[in-house]
Amino acid sequence: MDVIYSPDHALHQSPGELNSGEFVAAFEKPERAQIILDRALAVGLGPVLAPERFPLDAITRIHDAGMVDLLRHGFAEWEKLGRKGGAFPFTFFTRGFRADRVPQNLEGRLAHYCFDAGTPLTATSWQAIESSAHVALTGAAAIVSGASSVFSLCRPPGHHAGSDHYGGYCFLNNAAIAAQHVLDQGAKRVAILDVDYHHGNGTQQIFYQRDDVLLVNIHATPEQEYPYLLGFADEPGAGAGEGFNLNLPLPWGTDWEAWSAALETGCRRVAEYAPDVLLVSLGVDTYLGDPISQFKLDHEHFTRMGERIAKLGLPTQFVMEGGYAVAEIGINAVNVLTGFEGR
Amino acid sequence: MDVIYSPDHALHQSPGELNSGEFVAAFEKPERAQIILDRALAVGLGPVLAPERFPLDAITRIHDAGMVDLLRHGFAEWEKLGRKGGAFPFTFFTRGFRADRVPQNLEGRLAHYCFDAGTPLTATSWQAIESSAHVALTGAAAIVSGASSVFSLCRPPGHHAGSDHYGGYCFLNNAAIAAQHVLDQGAKRVAILDVDYHHGNGTQQIFYQRDDVLLVNIHATPEQEYPYLLGFADEPGAGAGEGFNLNLPLPWGTDWEAWSAALETGCRRVAEYAPDVLLVSLGVDTYLGDPISQFKLDHEHFTRMGERIAKLGLPTQFVMEGGYAVAEIGINAVNVLTGFEGR
Repeated sequence: MDVIYSPDHALHQSPGELNSGEFVAAFEKPERAQIILDRALAVGLGPVLAPERFPLDAITRIHDAGMVDLLRHGFAEWEKLGRKGGAFPFTFFTRGFRADRVPQNLEGRLAHYCFDAGTPLTATSWQAIESSAHVALTGAAAIVSGASSVFSLCRPPGHHAGSDHYGGYCFLNNAAIAAQHVLDQGAKRVAILDVDYHHGNGTQQIFYQRDDVLLVNIHATPEQEYPYLLGFADEPGAGAGEGFNLNLPLPWGTDWEAWSAALETGCRRVAEYAPDVLLVSLGVDTYLGDPISQFKLDHEHFTRMGERIAKLGLPTQFVMEGGYAVAEIGINAVNVLTGFEGR
Repeated sequence: MDVIYSPDHALHQSPGELNSGEFVAAFEKPERAQIILDRALAVGLGPVLAPERFPLDAITRIHDAGMVDLLRHGFAEWEKLGRKGGAFPFTFFTRGFRADRVPQNLEGRLAHYCFDAGTPLTATSWQAIESSAHVALTGAAAIVSGASSVFSLCRPPGHHAGSDHYGGYCFLNNAAIAAQHVLDQGAKRVAILDVDYHHGNGTQQIFYQRDDVLLVNIHATPEQEYPYLLGFADEPGAGAGEGFNLNLPLPWGTDWEAWSAALETGCRRVAEYAPDVLLVSLGVDTYLGDPISQFKLDHEHFTRMGERIAKLGLPTQFVMEGGYAVAEIGINAVNVLTGFEGR
């Protein structure tokens, strides 16, 4: 399958994160995408293509314009204030705060839009963020044009970013932007299967009230894992979207047997929905060696995962999400893709 | 007037905060309370009394029991996880997250309840936090017993803490706990005048739908200052509380002339309300030398402030809040109190 990739991803390099009470090096780093690309080339997955450019509208179809403006121009304002390091919020939105009024000042906009202490903006972050969305959009366009599969090697990842909030190393929701593009080009129904270790809270929030996107999430239970505050089993969707969100939370220590049973459940729901297109939010932090995760999938299980997804027989776009065992991230991610291709 | 004080406040010493993109030393530190106490003793303000103890109920009348449990026991769980430093959240609540379900794990509870990266728990924080609430309650009890004035030298401060969220160096809302105690002991109406540089978002959230507490806030506009997401002029209260919340936001650079005009407006509203008791949330970060604030009050203006408040002729409890120009915090805070006493 074609691989969509841009070296621009390296323009986002987080200076660190406040994790477990200490300011530590970022887990989400450029080497991740480079190693996946190297592996894709090594196994001859397919041609590596640069993304096309898309108008900003393709992004603001999903995201609040004020948030996009902050991502584009926030760091320049930060620098003008004489600040060092990445643009982190000091404070955050919570219950009781105004949701209807965004202050004009930079700190207030960071507080309103960003929800964690691990997703800073740097001088060149926007180029990487926009490029990552274009990588997703280019893959979506390939599917619209009739490709049976494509791999959008997105970085930064996207599935934690909601319509008007960002965090979890994610700024724009690449998968959601791609899904919307496919719908805007004539598809009636899109399914998103999120296999990342963490719940795709942003994707869920974006499509929670819609029936034209089915979202199936297989992830570590929020009772134990990030993002903690969304991703429980009792979130079926709302309004027109009721019945079109399926969360399959699993406990720490989940192995392939239990994980693949959830995959089976998820795939059956996707098949029942009969979408025109399948999008896979592909995180491989379910790997047993992942430094911040607690599932026990091994290399060969990623191949099995791809094989099962292929059985759905749907035009399929893979969009890269998480995975922090950097040395093994290439093998794990590409195993899903070669498994999908039946080789 | 009597000064209520406990040396237990020094048991909370923040290891730092993520401020302006860097992990820096905490602005809210034990020296603050010590220097205010020294000044009160130097001018002979009145006897310094230790707080009495109160049942936990006096705190949970205002605060969510789950949050109080986190403040009490969260650090012990943090240590068990082998974590270093203070117990900071990594991620935070935002729009779209579940407000109705609090995960059991520590990280999730920190994410649910805490709203900034500057209010960590340490091994001995709870002793200081509870003691600070008792300092406020002891002052309230003195007012109930007929004292015409009292100074509760609380630390940590409280006015940013809401019923189910904490941040801004504040864990429990001392002033709100004191106000509730006065009401529970028979008062019909309490007014809170918050003169801290920052908006008292927690106090506002707690009493926003109630008419038995009038809240007047004079503060830097959220368009420019922390907490950014609450404290605008168009927040009059809601339901039964409509008309009982008055925000008087002022821009950076505000001097005594403009500040005292807002005080006049606020005092007239308090007089009109005719409360049984007045509580003053006393922050002195309006001082021109404050390192994180942008108002221009000088030492003598704090005396004028106390004089104006005294003219209301109400039983008055002063509850200490912010102020970060540590060397001058004693003069500024005590000037309000001696001004109130007409000396």
